[in-house]
Amino acid sequence: MPSIDELAISTIRGLAVDAVSSANSGHPGAPLGLAPAAHVVWKAMNFNPKDPNWINRDRFVLSNGHACALLYSLLVLYGYDLTVDDLKQFRQLGSKTPGHPEATDTAGVEVTTGPLGQGISNAVGIAIAQKQFAATYNKDDIKLSDSYVYTFVGDGCLMEGVSSEASSLAGHLQLNNLIAFWDDNRISIDGDTAVSFTENVPERYRAYGWNVLEVEKGDTDLEGIAKAIDEAKKSTDKPTLIRLRTIIGYGSLKQGTHDVHGSPLKPDDLKQLKKGWGFPEDASFYIPDEVAKFYADEVAKKQKTQAAWDAKFAEYKQKYPEAGAEVQRRLDGKLPDNWRQHLPTYTPADKPLATRKLSENVINALHGHIPEFIGGSADLTGSNLTRATGSVDFQPPSTGLGDYDGVYIRYGVREHGMGAIMNGIAAFGANYKNYGGTFLNFVSYAAGALRLSALSHHPVIWVATHDSIGLGEDGPTHQPIETLAHFRAIPNLSVWRPADGNEVSGAYAAAIESTDHPAVIALTRQNLPQLEGSSIENTLKGGYTLVKQDKPDVIIVSSGSEVSISVAAAEVLSKQGVKANVVSLPDFFTFDKQSYEYRKSVLPDGVPILSVEVMTTFGWSKYAHEHLGINRFGASGKAGDLYKYFGFTPENVAETANKTIKFYEGKQVYSPLDTAF
Amino acid sequence: MPSIDELAISTIRGLAVDAVSSANSGHPGAPLGLAPAAHVVWKAMNFNPKDPNWINRDRFVLSNGHACALLYSLLVLYGYDLTVDDLKQFRQLGSKTPGHPEATDTAGVEVTTGPLGQGISNAVGIAIAQKQFAATYNKDDIKLSDSYVYTFVGDGCLMEGVSSEASSLAGHLQLNNLIAFWDDNRISIDGDTAVSFTENVPERYRAYGWNVLEVEKGDTDLEGIAKAIDEAKKSTDKPTLIRLRTIIGYGSLKQGTHDVHGSPLKPDDLKQLKKGWGFPEDASFYIPDEVAKFYADEVAKKQKTQAAWDAKFAEYKQKYPEAGAEVQRRLDGKLPDNWRQHLPTYTPADKPLATRKLSENVINALHGHIPEFIGGSADLTGSNLTRATGSVDFQPPSTGLGDYDGVYIRYGVREHGMGAIMNGIAAFGANYKNYGGTFLNFVSYAAGALRLSALSHHPVIWVATHDSIGLGEDGPTHQPIETLAHFRAIPNLSVWRPADGNEVSGAYAAAIESTDHPAVIALTRQNLPQLEGSSIENTLKGGYTLVKQDKPDVIIVSSGSEVSISVAAAEVLSKQGVKANVVSLPDFFTFDKQSYEYRKSVLPDGVPILSVEVMTTFGWSKYAHEHLGINRFGASGKAGDLYKYFGFTPENVAETANKTIKFYEGKQVYSPLDTAF
Repeated sequence: MPSIDELAISTIRGLAVDAVSSANSGHPGAPLGLAPAAHVVWKAMNFNPKDPNWINRDRFVLSNGHACALLYSLLVLYGYDLTVDDLKQFRQLGSKTPGHPEATDTAGVEVTTGPLGQGISNAVGIAIAQKQFAATYNKDDIKLSDSYVYTFVGDGCLMEGVSSEASSLAGHLQLNNLIAFWDDNRISIDGDTAVSFTENVPERYRAYGWNVLEVEKGDTDLEGIAKAIDEAKKSTDKPTLIRLRTIIGYGSLKQGTHDVHGSPLKPDDLKQLKKGWGFPEDASFYIPDEVAKFYADEVAKKQKTQAAWDAKFAEYKQKYPEAGAEVQRRLDGKLPDNWRQHLPTYTPADKPLATRKLSENVINALHGHIPEFIGGSADLTGSNLTRATGSVDFQPPSTGLGDYDGVYIRYGVREHGMGAIMNGIAAFGANYKNYGGTFLNFVSYAAGALRLSALSHHPVIWVATHDSIGLGEDGPTHQPIETLAHFRAIPNLSVWRPADGNEVSGAYAAAIESTDHPAVIALTRQNLPQLEGSSIENTLKGGYTLVKQDKPDVIIVSSGSEVSISVAAAEVLSKQGVKANVVSLPDFFTFDKQSYEYRKSVLPDGVPILSVEVMTTFGWSKYAHEHLGINRFGASGKAGDLYKYFGFTPENVAETANKTIKFYEGKQVYSPLDTAF
Repeated sequence: MPSIDELAISTIRGLAVDAVSSANSGHPGAPLGLAPAAHVVWKAMNFNPKDPNWINRDRFVLSNGHACALLYSLLVLYGYDLTVDDLKQFRQLGSKTPGHPEATDTAGVEVTTGPLGQGISNAVGIAIAQKQFAATYNKDDIKLSDSYVYTFVGDGCLMEGVSSEASSLAGHLQLNNLIAFWDDNRISIDGDTAVSFTENVPERYRAYGWNVLEVEKGDTDLEGIAKAIDEAKKSTDKPTLIRLRTIIGYGSLKQGTHDVHGSPLKPDDLKQLKKGWGFPEDASFYIPDEVAKFYADEVAKKQKTQAAWDAKFAEYKQKYPEAGAEVQRRLDGKLPDNWRQHLPTYTPADKPLATRKLSENVINALHGHIPEFIGGSADLTGSNLTRATGSVDFQPPSTGLGDYDGVYIRYGVREHGMGAIMNGIAAFGANYKNYGGTFLNFVSYAAGALRLSALSHHPVIWVATHDSIGLGEDGPTHQPIETLAHFRAIPNLSVWRPADGNEVSGAYAAAIESTDHPAVIALTRQNLPQLEGSSIENTLKGGYTLVKQDKPDVIIVSSGSEVSISVAAAEVLSKQGVKANVVSLPDFFTFDKQSYEYRKSVLPDGVPILSVEVMTTFGWSKYAHEHLGINRFGASGKAGDLYKYFGFTPENVAETANKTIKFYEGKQVYSPLDTAF
């Protein structure tokens, strides 16, 4: 007679393999192997299926996202907004059960996973946010935040460098609120992990400063799993990795082989599995009544836990009205009233500054006014200028280097890890608007995480300095050429390249107010003048006419450091009797959202348009007929020499504009905005 | 009285800091700290400055590329094609001494470094290539290849995930020909590494299966460094990490602080340094005569070593004429005569196949015919179809899983490491043409390495399968949208998206014959028909007219899986009396190299052009006026459902073409190829 736990585990397994078979696509192996651990972990976790965003819930992150049939089965059994009918639509277009878990589609999915190594790194971010939130708001008598983050990781996740970066930082930061289960099933797609993954994982994690536990029989030893969780929770200064030895596809005729990893089980295999569980052999999506009742009872218990927390929070708000109001504001997803008033503004009389310096001005101006605005740098603090004067580092107090309520994160040289951690911080909730600094060129190291920021609607901010050949001597290995084109081609991503101080403030205004898309803010190393005609309001349109002439002969559209050069070119042209408009286009994504009428007023018919940017011209035909750019790698040299060498001087821009005008003489000129559909 | 070694080391230090000061830009700290180790390592290495490509040279990879003043100083002292005058041009436009070492610019620079973590990963690739080359050609009586690869790595390199991936694989592969020096100076840009990097590096590397040695006084203990090298060379089955404790900026007034990392030394600091070395305080770029003589003598010794190898190779060619001729052919950079004859070709009568399968056909067809064509997959062998039938895995013989003369590399789930290793294999020489497989979307994880492939002119090949929404159920986390735009925007990179079997063969023909640029070959999961009119020759033009009409009403330009849909759309249109040309454009980069006349014949004036591709439309305005694409993330569902949902059916393409024709009626239509300059 199986225990209720065993019965529940069989039910999870059954739902998962039936979903995969129903879709005739998916991954049955990991759900079969991990159902026992999932069952025990979810029993131990605090959460409320009816209020999936409760801030003090424990989080569960399925880093091996291909095992999502497991996660969906748990969500169904626990009564989230997901049903057996949704499982029947597994991996079908428009369903709430896509082929990998997507946080935007399915309540109870904390983060979007599938690309390996991201989930565990997101979990590190969630753990950082929890620590920071707790340290900021917990009081001696009322602990508002004490949640854990659990994550399941496969061998693939542990092979990926992004998880190495995040795990090393997690050890340094002593994130004892993080509990990871390594599904050590020794199988990956190429077969036995012996073909490429023979390192000693426990030793590696100990070297990172983790607590490492082992459960030898992860397929059956429920007590062992529960004990490991208890043991992990005793850790005061280390994250925990629990090595869970499992058999992939446990119970299947193909258990222990990679055949069971990514293909549906055969009908006879399904039958023998169900028979083994004591289930009707031909029933699909079978949920025994006692299992349904068991989970309903579990939910009732968990809801009581939240109710107790709700009472605690009510008391908190009474005893600590100021902090309570701030927490409530953040839970409501609201920024402080009139927060934008802190943003610096400039006039042309203000001195030229690098936009990275102007970005620092914003960070300094906001420091102390928006507690949810936290961030750091991938070991380039002095170059990115990302640290507010007087801010405290987010560090374990025992290091003497900061405290957990610090707002500045020292990421180390770990761009990809940083990107995934930023996503995790955003996923924690509490309105965190977090940023990370590196050179623009090295945001590319984090392309995997950046793409997931956009897909998952995380409003994270990349402070991406040294944004062009203008960085000078470091040379082509550091100078972005394709980078902006790459990022502009990613859906749902703002790619700001502000031209001066007002545009920097505008970019931050948009990025911090965003609730559904990330932003990259590309910033210069070199000084730029403060422009006549720029403003936060103009910037928030994504693009606007900075120099406006009556019946212009040509329009120069530009971004960032080339805008002031274009303005100077317009002056050169003016002396020649040629009228040039100059358009500053700091963010394609925001500009594209403006009305057609507005966009057309900026880029009208009848005038040839020249784009000017020290990057690849790829993609600029969207807004311009002709292009001055750099379709090769850069070079090492003084910034001024490079700008001259590549033709980015007022004189050469003016000459190029004249060539453009001449080329289009006598031709019909249509705005590039006008398309057939 | 300093020893000649000490004098030489002071000379290296002096040249390096003088170069930085002369440029008023650069990194003096690491050269000061690492000069002793560099001096000892280079003494131990076999190489010939007059024949920098000698195949059996030991390689030196400066992974912390910002320390390049160190490397340039060594190259000058050893008499490579670099002089003190070049040092005086350090970091200036057009010099042979750019701000980070570039293999394309400077003889003796093995790989382009600077982006952290790449160099050590390249070194792993070089070590793999050496092992494979040695195992393939060494005979019991004549060992043609027995070289080592040395690399210097900083803390930053070790924090990057790419180095974790490569190092884990290096341990698995037992690469005892790899000797890495970790410059453990405990300083990074954010200050003391204690702020973010407190893991136990030696334990981590031991967990990877490395041999770890320590030199406590790396700034002075020359004997200790030499002994560590001897000890490392005794390793039979492990790569070696030598932890070298150094003081950054050794001898400077600012030694041991991050102030000395990335800024030139002050004049008084330079003076006191030179005084301490016993050099004239005001002399710059000072090379004592005895040091010059010392290095000249060293070179003479090293040249004798190469002369002995030359004699050995001559004997080898006599005793083993077949193998000798093959080695010579490879050293001459020539592929086997008529190698292209092995490439499969197809006619429309051949059955539809996925292009990933057609790629497997190529790999199978070439197997055994081109020994330098080696490759692997990042744990997706069965999905990428990258392994030739009957091939042997590249594995340590002791594993029983393969041998070192194997041609198939099991990379594990380590895309970024794979990319950097591929660059290293190419950098080894001997004409290696190596490929790596993963899903197209996850090539983005390796963006940092891919960019360096292009910048460094490495002819590596990415076999990038599952190239679109056509992969179906795995959903948007796995479906490329921005990926091709990103890669097409990278200079010097072929991005092939073949439409059928002939185009797949053509893409491989180009990629394997390339000597100066890498290739990404994007391949489908789903079946595609063999097209009428495709051929290897047509493909090699990068783009060509596949369906040609007299006076077409519209041109549909497409790539990969959408070409056959476009052909079907042309048939739909034909029934409506509308004439549509169809252009297949498998590689922008190659097409752009064709003559203007040819390109204009494909995309002429007077005909509206519609691009059709299941990706972002970003960048397509280069070749088309109107675009059918996907400017959002994909979705999880059956491939057929997704193609319908996003409008990629012959009917909808035809309708879109009709809209295009209608929109341009009565308007002047210029070819998008025609621009003002």
